[in-house]
Amino acid sequence: MEPSVTTQQDIEQHLTDEVVASFARTPDLRTRELLQALTKHLHAFIREVRLTEQEWAKAIEFLTATGHITDDKRQEFILLSDVLGASMQTIAVNNEAYGNATEATVFGPFFVEESPLIGTGGDIAAGASGTRCLVEGSVRDTAGNPVPGARIEVWEADEDGFYDVQYDDDRIAGRGHLFSEPDGSFSFWGVTPTAYPIPHDGPVGELLRAAGRSPMRAAHLHFMVSAAGFRTLVTHIFVEGDPQLEIGDAVFGVKESLVKKFTEQPGDQPWTRTEFEIVLAPQQ
Amino acid sequence: MEPSVTTQQDIEQHLTDEVVASFARTPDLRTRELLQALTKHLHAFIREVRLTEQEWAKAIEFLTATGHITDDKRQEFILLSDVLGASMQTIAVNNEAYGNATEATVFGPFFVEESPLIGTGGDIAAGASGTRCLVEGSVRDTAGNPVPGARIEVWEADEDGFYDVQYDDDRIAGRGHLFSEPDGSFSFWGVTPTAYPIPHDGPVGELLRAAGRSPMRAAHLHFMVSAAGFRTLVTHIFVEGDPQLEIGDAVFGVKESLVKKFTEQPGDQPWTRTEFEIVLAPQQ
Repeated sequence: MEPSVTTQQDIEQHLTDEVVASFARTPDLRTRELLQALTKHLHAFIREVRLTEQEWAKAIEFLTATGHITDDKRQEFILLSDVLGASMQTIAVNNEAYGNATEATVFGPFFVEESPLIGTGGDIAAGASGTRCLVEGSVRDTAGNPVPGARIEVWEADEDGFYDVQYDDDRIAGRGHLFSEPDGSFSFWGVTPTAYPIPHDGPVGELLRAAGRSPMRAAHLHFMVSAAGFRTLVTHIFVEGDPQLEIGDAVFGVKESLVKKFTEQPGDQPWTRTEFEIVLAPQQ
Repeated sequence: MEPSVTTQQDIEQHLTDEVVASFARTPDLRTRELLQALTKHLHAFIREVRLTEQEWAKAIEFLTATGHITDDKRQEFILLSDVLGASMQTIAVNNEAYGNATEATVFGPFFVEESPLIGTGGDIAAGASGTRCLVEGSVRDTAGNPVPGARIEVWEADEDGFYDVQYDDDRIAGRGHLFSEPDGSFSFWGVTPTAYPIPHDGPVGELLRAAGRSPMRAAHLHFMVSAAGFRTLVTHIFVEGDPQLEIGDAVFGVKESLVKKFTEQPGDQPWTRTEFEIVLAPQQ
Protein backbone atom coordinates (compact mmCIF):
# COMPACT_ATOMS: atom_id res chain seq x y z
CA MET A 1 0.00 0.00 0.00
CA GLU A 2 1.17 3.51 -0.76
CA PRO A 3 1.98 5.93 2.04
CA SER A 4 -0.47 8.78 2.45
CA VAL A 5 0.26 11.57 0.00
CA THR A 6 -0.82 15.14 0.30
CA THR A 7 0.26 17.77 -2.19
CA GLN A 8 -0.15 17.49 -5.95
CA GLN A 9 3.63 17.45 -6.25
CA ASP A 10 3.80 14.58 -3.75
CA ILE A 11 1.24 12.62 -5.75
CA GLU A 12 3.21 13.04 -8.97
CA GLN A 13 6.58 12.28 -7.39
CA HIS A 14 5.16 9.30 -5.57
CA LEU A 15 3.91 7.87 -8.87
CA THR A 16 7.33 8.28 -10.48
CA ASP A 17 8.96 6.61 -7.48
CA GLU A 18 6.49 3.74 -7.66
CA VAL A 19 7.26 3.08 -11.33
CA VAL A 20 11.03 3.33 -10.73
CA ALA A 21 10.65 0.86 -7.86
CA SER A 22 8.73 -1.55 -10.10
CA PHE A 23 11.94 -1.99 -12.12
CA ALA A 24 14.08 -2.58 -9.04
CA ARG A 25 14.18 -6.34 -9.49
CA THR A 26 15.17 -6.29 -13.18
CA PRO A 27 17.84 -9.03 -13.23
CA ASP A 28 20.07 -7.39 -15.83
CA LEU A 29 21.63 -4.37 -14.14
CA ARG A 30 22.11 -2.34 -17.30
CA THR A 31 18.50 -2.94 -18.35
CA ARG A 32 17.42 -1.85 -14.90
CA GLU A 33 19.45 1.33 -15.16
CA LEU A 34 18.00 2.13 -18.59
CA LEU A 35 14.37 1.49 -17.61
CA GLN A 36 14.64 3.45 -14.38
CA ALA A 37 16.32 6.42 -16.07
CA LEU A 38 13.80 6.31 -18.94
CA THR A 39 10.95 6.39 -16.42
CA LYS A 40 12.43 9.38 -14.58
CA HIS A 41 13.03 11.43 -17.70
CA LEU A 42 9.68 10.53 -19.29
CA HIS A 43 7.78 11.46 -16.14
CA ALA A 44 9.81 14.65 -15.72
CA PHE A 45 8.82 15.65 -19.27
CA ILE A 46 5.12 14.99 -18.66
CA ARG A 47 5.19 16.87 -15.35
CA GLU A 48 7.18 19.82 -16.68
CA VAL A 49 4.98 20.49 -19.71
CA ARG A 50 1.75 19.48 -17.91
CA LEU A 51 0.95 17.24 -20.87
CA THR A 52 -2.78 17.25 -21.62
CA GLU A 53 -4.73 14.08 -22.27
CA GLN A 54 -5.37 15.27 -25.85
CA GLU A 55 -1.64 15.79 -26.39
CA TRP A 56 -0.94 12.35 -24.98
CA ALA A 57 -3.51 10.86 -27.36
CA LYS A 58 -1.88 12.73 -30.25
CA ALA A 59 1.53 11.35 -29.28
CA ILE A 60 0.10 7.81 -29.28
CA GLU A 61 -1.38 8.46 -32.74
CA PHE A 62 1.93 9.87 -33.97
CA LEU A 63 3.90 6.84 -32.76
CA THR A 64 1.31 4.50 -34.27
CA ALA A 65 1.56 6.23 -37.67
CA THR A 66 5.37 6.13 -37.39
CA GLY A 67 5.17 2.38 -36.79
CA HIS A 68 2.74 1.79 -39.62
CA ILE A 69 4.80 3.58 -42.28
CA THR A 70 7.95 1.70 -41.22
CA ASP A 71 8.81 -1.38 -43.30
CA ASP A 72 11.83 -3.11 -44.82
CA LYS A 73 12.62 -0.06 -46.94
CA ARG A 74 11.49 2.81 -44.74
CA GLN A 75 12.58 3.35 -41.14
CA GLU A 76 10.55 6.25 -39.77
CA PHE A 77 11.70 5.74 -36.15
CA ILE A 78 15.31 6.29 -37.22
CA LEU A 79 14.20 9.45 -39.04
CA LEU A 80 12.41 10.57 -35.89
CA SER A 81 15.51 9.93 -33.80
CA ASP A 82 17.54 11.80 -36.42
CA VAL A 83 15.40 14.95 -36.54
CA LEU A 84 15.27 15.11 -32.72
CA GLY A 85 19.07 14.95 -32.64
CA ALA A 86 18.86 11.72 -30.61
CA SER A 87 20.93 9.83 -33.19
CA MET A 88 23.68 12.45 -33.13
CA GLN A 89 23.60 12.60 -29.33
CA THR A 90 24.04 8.81 -29.19
CA ILE A 91 26.99 9.13 -31.57
CA ALA A 92 28.43 11.91 -29.43
CA VAL A 93 28.38 9.85 -26.23
CA ASN A 94 29.84 6.81 -27.99
CA ASN A 95 32.57 8.58 -29.85
CA GLU A 96 34.03 10.84 -27.26
CA ALA A 97 36.44 13.33 -28.70
CA TYR A 98 39.92 11.78 -28.78
CA GLY A 99 42.81 14.15 -29.48
CA ASN A 100 42.97 15.01 -33.16
CA ALA A 101 40.94 11.94 -34.26
CA THR A 102 38.38 12.60 -37.00
CA GLU A 103 34.91 13.36 -35.65
CA ALA A 104 32.03 10.93 -36.13
CA THR A 105 28.59 11.72 -37.44
CA VAL A 106 25.29 9.93 -38.23
CA PHE A 107 25.29 6.53 -39.89
CA GLY A 108 21.98 7.02 -41.69
CA PRO A 109 19.73 4.29 -43.10
CA PHE A 110 21.41 3.74 -46.49
CA PHE A 111 24.51 1.67 -45.72
CA VAL A 112 24.53 -1.76 -47.37
CA GLU A 113 26.75 -4.72 -46.42
CA GLU A 114 28.96 -6.24 -49.12
CA SER A 115 29.42 -3.21 -51.31
CA PRO A 116 31.63 -3.65 -54.40
CA LEU A 117 35.39 -3.71 -53.82
CA ILE A 118 37.22 -1.09 -55.87
CA GLY A 119 40.95 -0.58 -56.18
CA THR A 120 42.84 2.60 -55.39
CA GLY A 121 41.70 5.23 -57.91
CA GLY A 122 38.62 3.17 -58.78
CA ASP A 123 35.09 4.48 -59.36
CA ILE A 124 32.23 4.00 -56.90
CA ALA A 125 29.71 5.99 -58.99
CA ALA A 126 28.97 3.03 -61.30
CA GLY A 127 26.54 5.14 -63.28
CA ALA A 128 25.15 7.29 -60.45
CA SER A 129 24.29 10.72 -61.92
CA GLY A 130 26.29 13.78 -60.91
CA THR A 131 29.46 15.78 -61.38
CA ARG A 132 32.43 13.46 -61.14
CA CYS A 133 34.59 13.93 -58.06
CA LEU A 134 38.04 12.66 -57.10
CA VAL A 135 38.49 12.03 -53.37
CA GLU A 136 42.05 11.65 -52.08
CA GLY A 137 43.48 11.31 -48.62
CA SER A 138 45.08 9.05 -46.11
CA VAL A 139 44.34 7.12 -42.96
CA ARG A 140 46.60 7.79 -39.98
CA ASP A 141 46.71 7.25 -36.25
CA THR A 142 46.62 10.15 -33.80
CA ALA A 143 50.44 10.26 -33.81
CA GLY A 144 50.48 10.71 -37.59
CA ASN A 145 51.62 7.18 -38.50
CA PRO A 146 49.99 5.71 -41.62
CA VAL A 147 47.36 3.01 -41.10
CA PRO A 148 47.71 0.59 -44.01
CA GLY A 149 44.96 -1.83 -45.01
CA ALA A 150 42.16 0.16 -43.34
CA ARG A 151 38.80 -0.78 -44.83
CA ILE A 152 37.14 2.34 -46.21
CA GLU A 153 33.44 2.06 -47.02
CA VAL A 154 31.95 4.98 -48.92
CA TRP A 155 28.37 5.62 -50.03
CA GLU A 156 26.41 8.57 -51.37
CA ALA A 157 23.23 9.76 -53.06
CA ASP A 158 23.16 10.62 -56.75
CA GLU A 159 22.53 14.10 -58.17
CA ASP A 160 18.77 13.54 -57.83
CA GLY A 161 19.15 12.97 -54.11
CA PHE A 162 18.55 9.20 -54.14
CA TYR A 163 20.69 6.31 -52.96
CA ASP A 164 20.72 3.21 -55.19
CA VAL A 165 18.55 1.29 -52.70
CA GLN A 166 15.81 3.90 -53.05
CA TYR A 167 15.26 2.89 -56.68
CA ASP A 168 12.98 0.00 -57.54
CA ASP A 169 15.53 -1.75 -59.75
CA ASP A 170 18.43 -3.61 -58.17
CA ARG A 171 21.12 -1.16 -59.18
CA ILE A 172 24.32 -0.88 -57.13
CA ALA A 173 25.68 2.63 -57.60
CA GLY A 174 27.29 5.31 -55.48
CA ARG A 175 28.81 2.82 -53.04
CA GLY A 176 31.93 0.69 -52.67
CA HIS A 177 34.86 -0.14 -50.45
CA LEU A 178 38.62 0.00 -50.76
CA PHE A 179 41.67 -0.44 -48.55
CA SER A 180 44.30 2.11 -47.67
CA GLU A 181 47.73 1.60 -49.27
CA PRO A 182 50.90 0.74 -47.29
CA ASP A 183 51.57 4.50 -46.88
CA GLY A 184 47.98 4.99 -45.60
CA SER A 185 46.82 6.75 -48.75
CA PHE A 186 43.59 6.17 -50.64
CA SER A 187 41.79 7.68 -53.62
CA PHE A 188 38.60 6.98 -55.50
CA TRP A 189 36.14 8.59 -57.89
CA GLY A 190 32.54 9.29 -57.01
CA VAL A 191 30.09 12.12 -57.62
CA THR A 192 30.08 15.55 -55.98
CA PRO A 193 27.52 15.36 -53.13
CA THR A 194 24.32 17.39 -53.41
CA ALA A 195 21.75 18.37 -50.75
CA TYR A 196 18.60 16.22 -50.64
CA PRO A 197 15.57 15.89 -48.38
CA ILE A 198 15.08 13.04 -45.94
CA PRO A 199 11.79 11.21 -46.71
CA HIS A 200 9.18 13.74 -45.57
CA ASP A 201 5.85 12.35 -46.72
CA GLY A 202 5.23 10.65 -43.35
CA PRO A 203 4.74 11.58 -39.69
CA VAL A 204 8.30 12.93 -39.37
CA GLY A 205 7.71 15.19 -42.39
CA GLU A 206 4.56 16.46 -40.66
CA LEU A 207 6.54 17.18 -37.52
CA LEU A 208 9.14 19.15 -39.50
CA ARG A 209 6.39 21.14 -41.24
CA ALA A 210 4.70 21.88 -37.91
CA ALA A 211 8.07 23.15 -36.66
CA GLY A 212 8.81 25.17 -39.79
CA ARG A 213 11.99 23.11 -40.30
CA SER A 214 13.64 22.10 -43.56
CA PRO A 215 13.79 18.37 -44.38
CA MET A 216 17.02 18.93 -46.33
CA ARG A 217 20.29 17.33 -45.42
CA ALA A 218 23.48 19.21 -46.17
CA ALA A 219 25.33 17.62 -49.12
CA HIS A 220 27.59 14.82 -47.87
CA LEU A 221 29.57 11.70 -48.68
CA HIS A 222 29.46 8.83 -46.15
CA PHE A 223 32.56 7.06 -44.80
CA MET A 224 32.99 4.11 -42.48
CA VAL A 225 36.64 3.37 -41.75
CA SER A 226 37.80 0.35 -39.77
CA ALA A 227 41.18 -1.11 -38.93
CA ALA A 228 42.37 -3.53 -36.27
CA GLY A 229 43.26 -1.74 -33.04
CA PHE A 230 41.26 1.39 -33.89
CA ARG A 231 37.79 2.65 -33.07
CA THR A 232 35.61 2.29 -36.17
CA LEU A 233 34.88 5.72 -37.58
CA VAL A 234 31.46 6.47 -39.06
CA THR A 235 31.40 9.91 -40.57
CA HIS A 236 30.65 12.16 -43.58
CA ILE A 237 32.43 14.88 -45.40
CA PHE A 238 30.39 17.97 -46.25
CA VAL A 239 30.77 20.45 -49.10
CA GLU A 240 32.11 23.90 -48.26
CA GLY A 241 29.76 26.60 -49.58
CA ASP A 242 26.65 24.37 -49.55
CA PRO A 243 23.88 26.82 -48.52
CA GLN A 244 22.25 24.03 -46.48
CA LEU A 245 25.16 24.27 -44.03
CA GLU A 246 23.78 27.67 -42.99
CA ILE A 247 20.09 26.75 -43.17
CA GLY A 248 20.76 23.72 -40.99
CA ASP A 249 21.14 20.00 -41.59
CA ALA A 250 17.85 18.19 -40.87
CA VAL A 251 19.64 15.58 -38.71
CA PHE A 252 22.31 17.80 -37.06
CA GLY A 253 25.17 15.82 -38.61
CA VAL A 254 27.43 18.73 -39.51
CA LYS A 255 30.74 19.26 -37.71
CA GLU A 256 32.90 22.17 -38.76
CA SER A 257 35.93 19.85 -39.04
CA LEU A 258 34.13 17.69 -41.62
CA VAL A 259 33.38 20.52 -44.07
CA LYS A 260 35.77 20.16 -47.02
CA LYS A 261 36.62 22.21 -50.08
CA PHE A 262 35.46 20.51 -53.29
CA THR A 263 37.57 22.35 -55.86
CA GLU A 264 36.00 22.68 -59.29
CA GLN A 265 38.15 21.51 -62.14
CA PRO A 266 37.49 23.14 -65.49
CA GLY A 267 37.17 21.30 -68.79
CA ASP A 268 34.61 19.90 -71.20
CA GLN A 269 33.41 17.64 -68.44
CA PRO A 270 33.89 19.70 -65.26
CA TRP A 271 34.75 17.69 -62.17
CA THR A 272 35.73 18.36 -58.57
CA ARG A 273 38.52 17.27 -56.31
CA THR A 274 38.65 17.05 -52.55
CA GLU A 275 40.90 15.78 -49.80
CA PHE A 276 40.05 13.98 -46.59
CA GLU A 277 42.78 13.24 -44.07
CA ILE A 278 41.38 10.58 -41.74
CA VAL A 279 42.72 10.14 -38.20
CA LEU A 280 41.55 7.07 -36.27
CA ALA A 281 41.24 6.95 -32.48
CA PRO A 282 42.66 3.87 -30.74
CA GLN A 283 40.29 1.11 -29.72
CA GLN A 284 39.44 1.54 -26.05
CA MET B 1 28.47 27.70 -38.29
CA GLU B 2 28.82 26.36 -34.80
CA PRO B 3 31.05 28.07 -32.25
CA SER B 4 34.24 26.25 -31.39
CA VAL B 5 33.61 23.57 -28.79
CA THR B 6 36.12 21.94 -26.54
CA THR B 7 35.20 19.46 -23.83
CA GLN B 8 33.08 16.37 -24.39
CA GLN B 9 30.43 17.91 -22.16
CA ASP B 10 30.46 21.06 -24.32
CA ILE B 11 30.03 18.98 -27.46
CA GLU B 12 27.02 17.17 -26.04
CA GLN B 13 25.40 20.30 -24.59
CA HIS B 14 26.04 22.21 -27.80
CA LEU B 15 24.22 19.53 -29.78
CA THR B 16 21.20 19.68 -27.45
CA ASP B 17 21.16 23.47 -27.75
CA GLU B 18 21.34 23.24 -31.53
CA VAL B 19 18.32 20.91 -31.69
CA VAL B 20 16.34 23.05 -29.23
CA ALA B 21 17.16 26.12 -31.36
CA SER B 22 15.94 24.31 -34.49
CA PHE B 23 12.44 24.36 -32.99
CA ALA B 24 12.61 28.05 -32.09
CA ARG B 25 10.52 29.14 -35.07
CA THR B 26 7.69 26.64 -34.54
CA PRO B 27 4.64 28.85 -35.15
CA ASP B 28 2.40 27.21 -32.56
CA LEU B 29 3.79 28.16 -29.15
CA ARG B 30 2.53 25.08 -27.32
CA THR B 31 3.98 22.77 -30.01
CA ARG B 32 7.27 24.64 -29.66
CA GLU B 33 7.26 24.17 -25.90
CA LEU B 34 6.52 20.46 -26.23
CA LEU B 35 9.19 19.80 -28.87
CA GLN B 36 11.85 21.77 -27.05
CA ALA B 37 11.12 20.08 -23.72
CA LEU B 38 11.01 16.66 -25.40
CA THR B 39 14.41 17.33 -26.97
CA LYS B 40 15.93 18.36 -23.64
CA HIS B 41 14.63 15.37 -21.72
CA LEU B 42 15.45 12.87 -24.48
CA HIS B 43 19.00 14.18 -24.78
CA ALA B 44 19.41 14.25 -20.99
CA PHE B 45 18.40 10.57 -20.88
CA ILE B 46 20.89 9.59 -23.61
CA ARG B 47 23.69 11.55 -21.95
CA GLU B 48 22.97 10.32 -18.43
CA VAL B 49 22.90 6.61 -19.29
CA ARG B 50 25.62 6.92 -21.98
CA LEU B 51 23.32 5.01 -24.34
CA THR B 52 25.33 2.69 -26.58
CA GLU B 53 24.74 2.43 -30.30
CA GLN B 54 23.58 -1.19 -29.84
CA GLU B 55 21.06 -0.08 -27.21
CA TRP B 56 19.85 2.68 -29.50
CA ALA B 57 19.39 0.12 -32.30
CA LYS B 58 17.48 -2.14 -29.92
CA ALA B 59 15.19 0.75 -28.95
CA ILE B 60 14.48 1.41 -32.64
CA GLU B 61 13.68 -2.29 -33.12
CA PHE B 62 11.44 -2.28 -30.03
CA LEU B 63 9.47 0.75 -31.25
CA THR B 64 9.17 -0.80 -34.71
CA ALA B 65 7.77 -4.05 -33.27
CA THR B 66 5.41 -2.01 -31.07
CA GLY B 67 4.16 -0.21 -34.18
CA HIS B 68 3.77 -3.39 -36.18
CA ILE B 69 1.67 -5.24 -33.58
CA THR B 70 -0.61 -2.21 -33.18
CA ASP B 71 -3.85 -2.33 -35.19
CA ASP B 72 -7.55 -1.50 -34.80
CA LYS B 73 -7.91 -4.01 -31.96
CA ARG B 74 -4.52 -3.80 -30.26
CA GLN B 75 -2.82 -0.60 -29.11
CA GLU B 76 0.66 -1.54 -27.94
CA PHE B 77 1.84 2.08 -27.58
CA ILE B 78 -0.91 2.70 -25.00
CA LEU B 79 0.22 -0.45 -23.18
CA LEU B 80 3.79 0.82 -23.27
CA SER B 81 2.70 4.18 -21.87
CA ASP B 82 0.70 2.34 -19.21
CA VAL B 83 3.51 0.06 -17.98
CA LEU B 84 5.94 3.00 -17.83
CA GLY B 85 3.42 4.88 -15.69
CA ALA B 86 3.25 7.61 -18.34
CA SER B 87 -0.52 7.21 -18.69
CA MET B 88 -1.06 7.56 -14.94
CA GLN B 89 1.32 10.52 -14.76
CA THR B 90 -0.65 12.25 -17.54
CA ILE B 91 -3.84 11.59 -15.58
CA ALA B 92 -2.21 12.94 -12.43
CA VAL B 93 -1.24 16.25 -14.03
CA ASN B 94 -4.68 16.66 -15.65
CA ASN B 95 -6.74 15.76 -12.61
CA GLU B 96 -5.07 17.65 -9.86
CA ALA B 97 -6.31 16.69 -6.44
CA TYR B 98 -9.37 18.79 -5.55
CA GLY B 99 -10.53 18.66 -1.94
CA ASN B 100 -12.40 15.47 -1.25
CA ALA B 101 -13.20 14.77 -4.92
CA THR B 102 -12.84 11.14 -6.01
CA GLU B 103 -9.43 10.35 -7.47
CA ALA B 104 -9.01 9.56 -11.16
CA THR B 105 -7.19 6.61 -12.66
CA VAL B 106 -6.37 5.14 -16.08
CA PHE B 107 -8.95 5.06 -18.84
CA GLY B 108 -7.64 1.89 -20.48
CA PRO B 109 -8.32 0.74 -24.03
CA PHE B 110 -11.68 -1.03 -23.53
CA PHE B 111 -14.23 1.79 -23.28
CA VAL B 112 -16.85 1.73 -26.04
CA GLU B 113 -19.14 4.61 -27.03
CA GLU B 114 -22.89 4.03 -26.97
CA SER B 115 -23.06 1.34 -24.34
CA PRO B 116 -26.53 0.04 -23.39
CA LEU B 117 -28.67 2.27 -21.17
CA ILE B 118 -29.81 0.49 -18.04
CA GLY B 119 -32.18 1.76 -15.36
CA THR B 120 -31.41 2.09 -11.65
CA GLY B 121 -30.89 -1.43 -10.32
CA GLY B 122 -30.40 -2.80 -13.85
CA ASP B 123 -27.82 -5.37 -14.94
CA ILE B 124 -24.76 -4.54 -17.00
CA ALA B 125 -23.39 -8.10 -17.00
CA ALA B 126 -25.70 -9.22 -19.83
CA GLY B 127 -24.30 -12.71 -19.67
CA ALA B 128 -20.69 -11.88 -18.72
CA SER B 129 -19.36 -14.74 -16.58
CA GLY B 130 -18.59 -14.16 -12.90
CA THR B 131 -19.99 -13.80 -9.40
CA ARG B 132 -22.86 -11.35 -9.47
CA CYS B 133 -22.24 -8.07 -7.71
CA LEU B 134 -24.46 -5.22 -6.62
CA VAL B 135 -22.89 -1.78 -6.76
CA GLU B 136 -24.61 1.03 -4.89
CA GLY B 137 -23.66 4.61 -4.19
CA SER B 138 -24.29 8.21 -4.97
CA VAL B 139 -22.84 11.12 -6.91
CA ARG B 140 -22.24 14.30 -4.94
CA ASP B 141 -20.35 17.58 -5.23
CA THR B 142 -17.46 18.43 -2.91
CA ALA B 143 -19.90 20.14 -0.50
CA GLY B 144 -21.96 16.94 -0.22
CA ASN B 145 -24.91 18.04 -2.35
CA PRO B 146 -26.39 15.33 -4.58
CA VAL B 147 -25.67 15.53 -8.31
CA PRO B 148 -28.79 14.23 -10.06
CA GLY B 149 -28.74 13.07 -13.69
CA ALA B 150 -25.00 12.39 -13.78
CA ARG B 151 -24.14 9.98 -16.59
CA ILE B 152 -22.39 6.95 -15.11
CA GLU B 153 -20.60 4.70 -17.61
CA VAL B 154 -19.38 1.39 -16.21
CA TRP B 155 -17.40 -1.38 -17.90
CA GLU B 156 -15.50 -4.46 -16.76
CA ALA B 157 -13.90 -7.75 -17.77
CA ASP B 158 -15.63 -11.07 -17.20
CA GLU B 159 -14.40 -13.77 -14.85
CA ASP B 160 -12.02 -15.04 -17.55
CA GLY B 161 -10.35 -11.64 -17.71
CA PHE B 162 -11.77 -10.54 -21.06
CA TYR B 163 -13.83 -7.54 -22.06
CA ASP B 164 -16.64 -8.16 -24.54
CA VAL B 165 -14.68 -6.44 -27.33
CA GLN B 166 -11.87 -8.98 -26.93
CA TYR B 167 -14.12 -11.77 -28.15
CA ASP B 168 -14.56 -12.46 -31.83
CA ASP B 169 -18.34 -12.40 -31.73
CA ASP B 170 -20.17 -9.07 -31.44
CA ARG B 171 -21.36 -9.57 -27.88
CA ILE B 172 -22.08 -6.57 -25.67
CA ALA B 173 -21.57 -7.60 -22.06
CA GLY B 174 -20.08 -6.14 -18.91
CA ARG B 175 -20.81 -2.55 -19.92
CA GLY B 176 -23.62 -0.04 -19.73
CA HIS B 177 -24.61 3.41 -18.59
CA LEU B 178 -27.15 4.83 -16.19
CA PHE B 179 -28.06 8.18 -14.65
CA SER B 180 -28.02 9.17 -11.01
CA GLU B 181 -31.43 9.65 -9.38
CA PRO B 182 -32.73 13.02 -8.11
CA ASP B 183 -31.12 12.27 -4.73
CA GLY B 184 -27.80 11.47 -6.44
CA SER B 185 -28.08 7.73 -5.82
CA PHE B 186 -27.36 4.95 -8.29
CA SER B 187 -27.25 1.16 -8.23
CA PHE B 188 -26.62 -1.57 -10.76
CA TRP B 189 -25.68 -5.22 -11.01
CA GLY B 190 -22.49 -6.45 -12.62
CA VAL B 191 -19.90 -9.13 -11.84
CA THR B 192 -17.29 -9.07 -9.09
CA PRO B 193 -14.04 -7.88 -10.73
CA THR B 194 -11.15 -10.35 -11.05
CA ALA B 195 -7.47 -9.75 -11.78
CA TYR B 196 -6.38 -10.31 -15.39
CA PRO B 197 -3.21 -9.74 -17.42
CA ILE B 198 -2.78 -6.95 -19.92
CA PRO B 199 -1.97 -8.39 -23.38
CA HIS B 200 1.60 -9.63 -22.91
CA ASP B 201 2.42 -11.58 -26.06
CA GLY B 202 4.04 -8.54 -27.70
CA PRO B 203 6.99 -6.19 -27.13
CA VAL B 204 5.49 -4.77 -23.91
CA GLY B 205 5.14 -8.31 -22.55
CA GLU B 206 8.82 -8.86 -23.37
CA LEU B 207 9.74 -5.69 -21.52
CA LEU B 208 7.78 -6.81 -18.45
CA ARG B 209 9.47 -10.22 -18.55
CA ALA B 210 12.90 -8.62 -18.87
CA ALA B 211 12.04 -6.54 -15.81
CA GLY B 212 10.64 -9.46 -13.83
CA ARG B 213 7.32 -7.62 -13.58
CA SER B 214 3.82 -9.10 -13.50
CA PRO B 215 1.49 -8.28 -16.41
CA MET B 216 -1.51 -8.57 -14.08
CA ARG B 217 -3.86 -5.72 -13.38
CA ALA B 218 -5.45 -5.57 -9.95
CA ALA B 219 -9.16 -6.49 -10.17
CA HIS B 220 -11.22 -3.42 -11.00
CA LEU B 221 -14.46 -2.00 -12.32
CA HIS B 222 -14.28 1.08 -14.60
CA PHE B 223 -16.32 4.23 -14.10
CA MET B 224 -16.66 7.40 -16.14
CA VAL B 225 -18.94 9.93 -14.52
CA SER B 226 -19.97 13.19 -16.19
CA ALA B 227 -22.37 15.95 -15.27
CA ALA B 228 -22.72 19.55 -16.44
CA GLY B 229 -20.54 21.89 -14.40
CA PHE B 230 -18.24 19.13 -13.15
CA ARG B 231 -14.89 17.71 -14.21
CA THR B 232 -15.49 14.36 -15.88
CA LEU B 233 -14.20 11.62 -13.62
CA VAL B 234 -12.50 8.58 -15.12
CA THR B 235 -11.71 6.05 -12.45
CA HIS B 236 -11.95 2.45 -11.20
CA ILE B 237 -12.89 0.77 -7.96
CA PHE B 238 -10.58 -2.00 -6.75
CA VAL B 239 -11.33 -5.04 -4.61
CA GLU B 240 -10.06 -5.03 -1.03
CA GLY B 241 -8.05 -8.18 -0.35
CA ASP B 242 -7.07 -8.76 -3.99
CA PRO B 243 -3.49 -10.11 -3.69
CA GLN B 244 -2.55 -8.20 -6.85
CA LEU B 245 -2.88 -4.95 -4.84
CA GLU B 246 0.23 -6.03 -2.95
CA ILE B 247 2.09 -7.52 -5.92
CA GLY B 248 1.50 -4.34 -7.88
CA ASP B 249 -0.87 -3.24 -10.62
CA ALA B 250 0.83 -3.49 -14.04
CA VAL B 251 -0.29 0.04 -14.99
CA PHE B 252 0.00 1.78 -11.57
CA GLY B 253 -3.71 2.58 -11.47
CA VAL B 254 -4.32 1.80 -7.79
CA LYS B 255 -5.15 4.58 -5.32
CA GLU B 256 -5.79 3.63 -1.72
CA SER B 257 -9.03 5.67 -1.75
CA LEU B 258 -10.40 3.58 -4.61
CA VAL B 259 -10.03 0.20 -2.87
CA LYS B 260 -13.50 -0.96 -1.77
CA LYS B 261 -14.87 -3.80 0.29
CA PHE B 262 -16.83 -6.28 -1.82
CA THR B 263 -18.86 -8.05 0.86
CA GLU B 264 -19.71 -11.66 0.10
CA GLN B 265 -23.36 -12.55 0.42
CA PRO B 266 -24.12 -16.17 1.26
CA GLY B 267 -26.71 -18.30 -0.48
CA ASP B 268 -27.14 -20.89 -3.21
CA GLN B 269 -25.82 -18.36 -5.67
CA PRO B 270 -23.28 -16.31 -3.67
CA TRP B 271 -22.97 -12.71 -4.69
CA THR B 272 -21.14 -9.59 -3.50
CA ARG B 273 -22.16 -6.11 -2.62
CA THR B 274 -20.12 -2.91 -2.65
CA GLU B 275 -20.54 0.81 -2.23
CA PHE B 276 -18.96 3.67 -4.12
CA GLU B 277 -19.58 7.23 -3.01
CA ILE B 278 -18.54 9.45 -5.91
CA VAL B 279 -17.54 13.08 -5.38
CA LEU B 280 -17.13 15.24 -8.50
CA ALA B 281 -14.75 18.20 -8.68
CA PRO B 282 -16.12 21.38 -10.25
CA GLN B 283 -15.29 22.15 -13.87
CA GLN B 284 -12.35 24.58 -13.94
